[in-house]
Amino acid sequence: MFESAEIGHAIDKETYEAQVPALREALLEAQYELKQQARFPVIILINGIEGAGKGDTVKLLNEWMDPRLIEVRTFDQQTDEELARPPAWRYWRQLPAKGRMGILFGNWYSQMLQGRVHGQFKDAVLDQAISGAERLEQMLCDEGALIIKFWFHLSKKQMKARLKALQDDPLHSWRISPLDWQQSQTYDRFVRFGERVLRRTSREYAPWHVIEGVDPHYRSLAVGQILLDAMQAALQAPPQTRHNPHIAPLGESIDHRNVIDSLDLSRRLDKEDYQEQLITEQARLAGLLRDKRMRRHALVAVFEGNDAAGKGGAIRRVAAALDPRQYSIVPIAAPSEDERAQPYLWRFWRHIPARGKFTVFDRSWYGRVLVERVEGFCAPADWLRAYGEINDFEEQLCDAGIVVVKFWLAIDEQTQLERFKEREQISFKRFKITEDDWRNREKWGQYRDAVGDMVDRTSTEIAPWTLVEANDKRWARVKVLRTINEALEAAFKADKKSR
Amino acid sequence: MFESAEIGHAIDKETYEAQVPALREALLEAQYELKQQARFPVIILINGIEGAGKGDTVKLLNEWMDPRLIEVRTFDQQTDEELARPPAWRYWRQLPAKGRMGILFGNWYSQMLQGRVHGQFKDAVLDQAISGAERLEQMLCDEGALIIKFWFHLSKKQMKARLKALQDDPLHSWRISPLDWQQSQTYDRFVRFGERVLRRTSREYAPWHVIEGVDPHYRSLAVGQILLDAMQAALQAPPQTRHNPHIAPLGESIDHRNVIDSLDLSRRLDKEDYQEQLITEQARLAGLLRDKRMRRHALVAVFEGNDAAGKGGAIRRVAAALDPRQYSIVPIAAPSEDERAQPYLWRFWRHIPARGKFTVFDRSWYGRVLVERVEGFCAPADWLRAYGEINDFEEQLCDAGIVVVKFWLAIDEQTQLERFKEREQISFKRFKITEDDWRNREKWGQYRDAVGDMVDRTSTEIAPWTLVEANDKRWARVKVLRTINEALEAAFKADKKSR
Repeated sequence: MFESAEIGHAIDKETYEAQVPALREALLEAQYELKQQARFPVIILINGIEGAGKGDTVKLLNEWMDPRLIEVRTFDQQTDEELARPPAWRYWRQLPAKGRMGILFGNWYSQMLQGRVHGQFKDAVLDQAISGAERLEQMLCDEGALIIKFWFHLSKKQMKARLKALQDDPLHSWRISPLDWQQSQTYDRFVRFGERVLRRTSREYAPWHVIEGVDPHYRSLAVGQILLDAMQAALQAPPQTRHNPHIAPLGESIDHRNVIDSLDLSRRLDKEDYQEQLITEQARLAGLLRDKRMRRHALVAVFEGNDAAGKGGAIRRVAAALDPRQYSIVPIAAPSEDERAQPYLWRFWRHIPARGKFTVFDRSWYGRVLVERVEGFCAPADWLRAYGEINDFEEQLCDAGIVVVKFWLAIDEQTQLERFKEREQISFKRFKITEDDWRNREKWGQYRDAVGDMVDRTSTEIAPWTLVEANDKRWARVKVLRTINEALEAAFKADKKSR
Repeated sequence: MFESAEIGHAIDKETYEAQVPALREALLEAQYELKQQARFPVIILINGIEGAGKGDTVKLLNEWMDPRLIEVRTFDQQTDEELARPPAWRYWRQLPAKGRMGILFGNWYSQMLQGRVHGQFKDAVLDQAISGAERLEQMLCDEGALIIKFWFHLSKKQMKARLKALQDDPLHSWRISPLDWQQSQTYDRFVRFGERVLRRTSREYAPWHVIEGVDPHYRSLAVGQILLDAMQAALQAPPQTRHNPHIAPLGESIDHRNVIDSLDLSRRLDKEDYQEQLITEQARLAGLLRDKRMRRHALVAVFEGNDAAGKGGAIRRVAAALDPRQYSIVPIAAPSEDERAQPYLWRFWRHIPARGKFTVFDRSWYGRVLVERVEGFCAPADWLRAYGEINDFEEQLCDAGIVVVKFWLAIDEQTQLERFKEREQISFKRFKITEDDWRNREKWGQYRDAVGDMVDRTSTEIAPWTLVEANDKRWARVKVLRTINEALEAAFKADKKSR
């Protein structure tokens, strides 16, 4: 979930200064339009890692916009009055009215996260709090509110550097953080439980936006732009769209960078290394699947990637290591008649492996947020809710002991072109290249955005995405095998711990 | 939640036999239309008390309709195949396809209830299961499914009689029930946790229908009619209503009886008894509110009722007992400008008492499902979701130690007419009677239905409705005071237990 927020998003000062005036003006205009219409409030939630620029961003928003129409609320210590009433009372009394904006800093999410990180309760109670937050937000959206949730992120290394800098700065050293962020364990727990919270509460009516917090120019422009897009969309929506809640749009990152670009596609293996490593990893996989600890688990491997990225070849190298009775490969193409008569995920549920078994999905449920999104085969509301549905689905698999590994095989446009041309030359490969493939190339940019959103919203601690640099097929095949092996070993190790 | 299902709903044989042929024909027609359109599946969940006619009803539905288009699924013991996969897999594989009906007998709800009743886990884990069920059903509805949930209910006494009868019947004595229903504690726990499950999962896109199970004619017609109404509404809805999910309509009970009719409005107190009891209860209330145990609680009393039912007089008798610094009375009329700029429940949240205090709501948040529903001030989707929102709201109050008592003061039409006329005669009461009051009288039947639904959907174990027979004002006033006193004493007692 935080992959895209650790790639070093940055905007140079010149670009920043060139863009700010127009953004400010548009935000102010949106704000006055909001006041004029007085149809709905804007509720902005600010959460995330200490030192990632939450406070500075809120300050900036107040400078950019008309602060008379913004209420900034913090929820630190409960007052006596608040302590004497149900916990939610303090949030209700601070809600912005229709036509106004409220920035809730330290909201219901901070409370549940702090409680969980400090070990005041376990996951079941955290889940109760999460479900309470969902009901609250659902209700607010049904009542017309536009909710925008920002999570400011830093990698652990970035956070440490940032805290150090703040500590040394006399202007900031008075800041006391509610969690003891100096401890590396606190960061780990905060990120782990934060991910659980984000996974469950990123719903289509109020999705989270994860913002990388290192570069102030980037984070300010990113927040401003998301805010502006969401407000403009909601202000333009017809008045009675109560069952089509304001969906804060997903958009391209403002510095045009996404996780895919941060891959080093020049990575490669020479033939000798490849053959040695391939054999080693294949033997290791065969051993792991024969291991008696495998009886408590199953394995699901998802292969997605650019056309001609080499999914088929990678899958064959995985299969080559194994007894055919132990695995099955499910190629996902257009759904059958039976499948069309069922909810979207049904066709995947039917192929879930039993304990001890291994299923390879050659393309998968991610088609919903890739090809169906890009080609317009389903409505935006449908693919937007799919992220949450897929996370729920994979969580159920993981809870049942299934190890889920997901690969995106990435190549660049030039490599794809070469492979397409090559395929047209070789008779037995010619069937692999169609008009559709050429057409898809024209949508390269749209697919890139869709892949970025997919990774951001569905790469979870329990089922992370592995991005595979696949310009070199050898590198890709070995990385795939090694990733599977490491995931299985980690699962076996976790068993031991929990016993 | 089960109030309406303990009033002895019944349909005589003649009426039953006269109505069944038309119902059957209409159901069959709907079934074929469903098949023809093949746009969505119908998923029917069957749950409830043992012996309440679940099995017989399912059998009957198969006789009435075309069984080739119905799949009846039971989920008893998990098979080996099922045990080897995530728990939800067994449900996914049994889902009916678009155009077909599936009756799920022993579904996700049975599993979580059995686990909780048997003490295999606590409330937090039950809540996790509930939230999983909500996600599943929300997703199914988003995918177009029509979900109809039936809870078959019997009072404890009725259940015992029914089990006894079954036991003595050689045709039925082989039936073994999964829970040991002979134990009275099992019934209590099942009903208690059942109510928690119903309260949380009765959402506007898939509400529960509670069916009193004693009389086979009544329960069969009731189920058939609800099924028919829901299917017809969904079949007639325009094709792309995906964000306007099929809402199974709430309707008048088929035997035209509801909880309000079952009140004995002739109950009265003579003057002497009244004065004695009034003073006793007032003194008791004053004592309870001064009690130091009150520091851990607050008290909220909601007064709703027919026009001229005597709410004001009853409230005055409550207040008369108390120190004015300890209570406040909040009259609810049309919302102010500030209140209209906020979500519906905001105007009530702002008046929630601090610990130790007592707030009387003279009319309340129930306006949403009474006057706003009947007068069409809000859309059906809004008042339908309000039941769940109100239950969530009151649960938060109760969790914070607030004792919530809710009164519906009921009078009959004749008594109301007399009081209206009397008011017109007495000068200082004349301001109490308006054109609106006369107009409301014409909607007596609609208000009656709305009150019935309100009680069914919001009378919960934690915040039950008290229906007050108010033709006699003395009877009503004493009953109100006594109910408040008993609720406070019960709360104090529960404190002691939990310490």
